Amino acid sequence: MAEPLFKRAAFIGIGLIGSSMARRMAADGLAGELVACARSQDTLDQAVGLGVVSQAYDTPAAAVEGADLVVIATPIGSYASIAKAIGPALKPGAIVTDVGSVKQAVVDAVTPYLSDQNPFVPGHPIAGTENSGPASGFPELFEGRWTILTPTESTNSDAVEKVRTLWEGMGAMVDIMTPSHHDMVLAITSHLPHLIAYTIVGTATDLEDDLRQEVVKYSASGFRDFTRIAASDPVMWRDIFLNNREATLETLQRFSEDLTALQRAIRRGEGDVLEKLFARTRKIRRGIIDAKQAE
Amino acid sequence: MAEPLFKRAAFIGIGLIGSSMARRMAADGLAGELVACARSQDTLDQAVGLGVVSQAYDTPAAAVEGADLVVIATPIGSYASIAKAIGPALKPGAIVTDVGSVKQAVVDAVTPYLSDQNPFVPGHPIAGTENSGPASGFPELFEGRWTILTPTESTNSDAVEKVRTLWEGMGAMVDIMTPSHHDMVLAITSHLPHLIAYTIVGTATDLEDDLRQEVVKYSASGFRDFTRIAASDPVMWRDIFLNNREATLETLQRFSEDLTALQRAIRRGEGDVLEKLFARTRKIRRGIIDAKQAE
Repeated sequence: MAEPLFKRAAFIGIGLIGSSMARRMAADGLAGELVACARSQDTLDQAVGLGVVSQAYDTPAAAVEGADLVVIATPIGSYASIAKAIGPALKPGAIVTDVGSVKQAVVDAVTPYLSDQNPFVPGHPIAGTENSGPASGFPELFEGRWTILTPTESTNSDAVEKVRTLWEGMGAMVDIMTPSHHDMVLAITSHLPHLIAYTIVGTATDLEDDLRQEVVKYSASGFRDFTRIAASDPVMWRDIFLNNREATLETLQRFSEDLTALQRAIRRGEGDVLEKLFARTRKIRRGIIDAKQAE
Repeated sequence: MAEPLFKRAAFIGIGLIGSSMARRMAADGLAGELVACARSQDTLDQAVGLGVVSQAYDTPAAAVEGADLVVIATPIGSYASIAKAIGPALKPGAIVTDVGSVKQAVVDAVTPYLSDQNPFVPGHPIAGTENSGPASGFPELFEGRWTILTPTESTNSDAVEKVRTLWEGMGAMVDIMTPSHHDMVLAITSHLPHLIAYTIVGTATDLEDDLRQEVVKYSASGFRDFTRIAASDPVMWRDIFLNNREATLETLQRFSEDLTALQRAIRRGEGDVLEKLFARTRKIRRGIIDAKQAE
């Protein structure tokens, strides 16, 4: 059997993304040994019980001992304290990576605590579901999806290539860009859509009881698709908005202006304005289907 | 073989909804003969070519001749002229129904042109896809979904029961409510979500070329779900917003206030406010899954 890409991989956090990675790495022999730590004992018990990892640790520092790959897969708000804890415990040469949805803030939080001997390769798989926890993971999650790596100028390029090989081994396509460009693109493709979905589902949640029952009953008419997005992990998303504040607010501003224009067209009964916009938006869907990111 | 529910059903408009109804009615023997007219010859040719209907007519008046059920399944803006055209051509006792997404405006548009001998039973199946045209229809579209009927005080109750039987025969569950209540509920569950989706996809459409390419590429992170909704038929949706203006604007107002509050929380870094909202919205998704309107 060929030597695995990593001898020992340690997951800090083992939810949907972490456990999907671990399952796939085990299935495809990308790591010799897989271990994890998590904040809650219940999560750890599940991860070991499901066979996702072979060993569970109480602290990040204990988990990373002897590992040549460390994957941080927790809500972003916890990164600085995790980096601080694992920094001194890392094996020389061990690569640290992550899967967070914001990248500049993550670089700022992690790098100060790592020595020159431990390259940090920030990563973000553009894949997921609305479910959380180790039981929700599955090895095909990244198949045919993009993973973005955002190394800085000082990131060791061999380490970047090794993390790229890992993601390609898990079925993903890999792109490289700067952390700040990533944050701007994702503000549009991900953070704004989640913000909007959370808002609209929140608006419905505030309705009187009777009406809310009816909204649930007739949700197949459009509302339902928003509830799927708005069922995503609350702490993870809280941290995303707090850590990509500028880009999210900037994008939200554009959206609000466009919404106001549409509102005005409806109020004034400008059918031609509405039809023209609605015809244009159809084309983007076609582009996504052509790019094989939807059926 | 048992007598079909309707001897001859005429569809005015034979797109996604009309053709799905016709397919199911044929499959389950709910109508003896199915005919249609449509504005475009291409649509008519497709509907006949696919075997969805047995006969095609050039005008609504010709199509409804001899029919005991007439289904109006065109964009709402065309209803008044259709009703005017078919009114004098209807067989005494023929039931007229529709599938439009707005109901008060439809009642106002149609009833003035029908005689007392032709009951109008307004209907709205809460089902659909983002695709349009006769080829996109399929007989299972209404299975397990709700159809809302909105008879007025003067609507003949036998006619209402017959239309209910038709929908139940097509696998739907039927609810009855007033036109104005329907319009308020659908403004929340359907019209606002579509308005938001059209806006956000429109905002992305306006981006510079490079950035728009990236939005398509990384759409799996949330944006993709909005593009599905925003790929719906442009004329149909133009007419919905023009005809349910008050309820849509009222709902949009609530949404905008909530969005502003969330924007403020992000700007001020109020993590607890964000987390609390994001945790609440998860529950509505659970309600929808429990109501079997999503998996």
